[in-house]
Amino acid sequence: MSNSKMYNVAVVGATGAVGQKILETLEKKDFPIDQLKLLSSSRSAGTKMKFKEAIYTVEEATPESFENVDIALFSAGGSVSKALANEAVKKGAVVVDNTSAYRMDPEVPLVVPEVNEEDIKKHKGIIANPNCSTIQMVAALKPIQDQLGLERVIVSTYQAVSGAGAEAVEELKDQSQAFLDGEDLNPELMPVKGEEHHYPIAFNALPQIDVFQENGYTFEEMKMINETKKILHKDALNVAATCVRLPFFTSHAESVYVEVNEPTSVKILQGLLNDADGVTLQDDPDNQVYPTPLDAAGKPDVFVGRIRQDLDVKNGYHLWIVSDNLLKGAAWNSVQIAESLIKNEWL
Amino acid sequence: MSNSKMYNVAVVGATGAVGQKILETLEKKDFPIDQLKLLSSSRSAGTKMKFKEAIYTVEEATPESFENVDIALFSAGGSVSKALANEAVKKGAVVVDNTSAYRMDPEVPLVVPEVNEEDIKKHKGIIANPNCSTIQMVAALKPIQDQLGLERVIVSTYQAVSGAGAEAVEELKDQSQAFLDGEDLNPELMPVKGEEHHYPIAFNALPQIDVFQENGYTFEEMKMINETKKILHKDALNVAATCVRLPFFTSHAESVYVEVNEPTSVKILQGLLNDADGVTLQDDPDNQVYPTPLDAAGKPDVFVGRIRQDLDVKNGYHLWIVSDNLLKGAAWNSVQIAESLIKNEWL
Repeated sequence: MSNSKMYNVAVVGATGAVGQKILETLEKKDFPIDQLKLLSSSRSAGTKMKFKEAIYTVEEATPESFENVDIALFSAGGSVSKALANEAVKKGAVVVDNTSAYRMDPEVPLVVPEVNEEDIKKHKGIIANPNCSTIQMVAALKPIQDQLGLERVIVSTYQAVSGAGAEAVEELKDQSQAFLDGEDLNPELMPVKGEEHHYPIAFNALPQIDVFQENGYTFEEMKMINETKKILHKDALNVAATCVRLPFFTSHAESVYVEVNEPTSVKILQGLLNDADGVTLQDDPDNQVYPTPLDAAGKPDVFVGRIRQDLDVKNGYHLWIVSDNLLKGAAWNSVQIAESLIKNEWL
Repeated sequence: MSNSKMYNVAVVGATGAVGQKILETLEKKDFPIDQLKLLSSSRSAGTKMKFKEAIYTVEEATPESFENVDIALFSAGGSVSKALANEAVKKGAVVVDNTSAYRMDPEVPLVVPEVNEEDIKKHKGIIANPNCSTIQMVAALKPIQDQLGLERVIVSTYQAVSGAGAEAVEELKDQSQAFLDGEDLNPELMPVKGEEHHYPIAFNALPQIDVFQENGYTFEEMKMINETKKILHKDALNVAATCVRLPFFTSHAESVYVEVNEPTSVKILQGLLNDADGVTLQDDPDNQVYPTPLDAAGKPDVFVGRIRQDLDVKNGYHLWIVSDNLLKGAAWNSVQIAESLIKNEWL
């Protein structure tokens, strides 16, 4: 970065799965931090966490926590963001919010930097980080939209349990071991914490992520549908989603069907995606090269493969998109937004 | 069954994952067996297997094995069917073949009894059992096609490892334990035995089932596409498939998008599927009722849920279809074909 100024940064929800990844990403990117503040609920306050060579004590997040904070990265759940994001803004911080609290607010930019970085400029204090499953999809769709026009998207997801938090990861581990040992699985959390019914996630597939809406879609599915239109600036885009939770820990995969305005070739699509920022093409069926969740885990890119022409519809194409849901799907994208705020002097 | 005649039955591939399920199904349905012959490769010959109260010794399958056999149920792989199915027919047996060897042969009926039972009548000695992922899908699509007309199908699958045989089940068990123990996964089999590259299946998703074709689709995907058109008697049907192997043991799940001729309502679709033979509707989002692979395992039905209207396309609908890949997807359907041969005197 050309700017050598340093910034006071707060991470809200520092002890959570995404919060930890945000700290790792800030460290990895050598983010220009002057003072770092780690915040959480009262329950996790007092936890000690390491950042670079220093030990920090996590503090309870209150409105006063944001005095002198330049950038606040929120990932402590929607209710915390609703309670504290505007307080942080009042204190002068710019908030990058990784919850669904403000994503569809017309006053709040919803941003994947490779896709719609300019939207950050219009912020009024809060910038929303999209849902994990949306981010990786739009990163791959944007170059297609730009070159060929995009008419229609139908996606079926294959989502990792870490998207449901650290407890869900523990549940999958415990249940997997119980299943292998021939013991009872005792589902207590998945598919949705707080819902009435729980189903085993180990060696199973659950077609429910988040709660059902009145139209029969889950909230996760509606997030993908609405956020995709907002980020791609195209309300008229036809988007359909089916979201499924699966028994793996990291990375979401997506089977995506698209219809473009101008029929093209697989070669041209591969070229577009190969050249796209933040996208890595892994598409060589002759050599069994395609993305998988296990291979994408820990990497910041969006991986795309299995690109093929629909056999009946001449402007229809199929893609397989995989990315680490905690990195590009959450922490990495949030920190990219913060970097853009600095680089473009949009703070 | 009204007919009290008894039949000589041979099961080829008796020791395999599907062969064992065929024996369980014959026993469960109290199939009218006079003499039962268990056949296999030379490698498994000599194995002792129990059927009802008797112990049988598995014999090596040769052309002579089919003397006096009325019905031969083949599930020992395509090469065995190619080598022996016609030999069995020459000896007077009717073959129900659970491999892909003859499925697309225009002389061979490809049958899901609830969908196209009448096709059995035209057999010339061999009737093919469709691919597991095809069977469950067409069972749910048929009542929709009959009442509303069917124009288009786009499916993304979530397939269990047992579809790749008993060795794949062992690999998933072993790798899952290794992963939980923090040990190396050593992939040796999945996604396809005999292919050059192997990827871990534990806690992963592999977008390859069977080998790649020149058009970039896998053979599994092309099976779904071509078999669906043949069974539904509609070459002009638009069908697209993406097939994915997942880390669970039993039952395939499918996220299916359909376009019908006549726009309808979710209620009407639920009614059609509720009334369909072999289909069980599990569709009550308010009470978190939907099918899952673990719940469908061991049951012969095809389970359908998550039925909803596309939000943009007025004749478009989404469904989630789950069935035990070894039962309705293989053994159960094969034995149903055999029952139909007897019941209708089509032997």
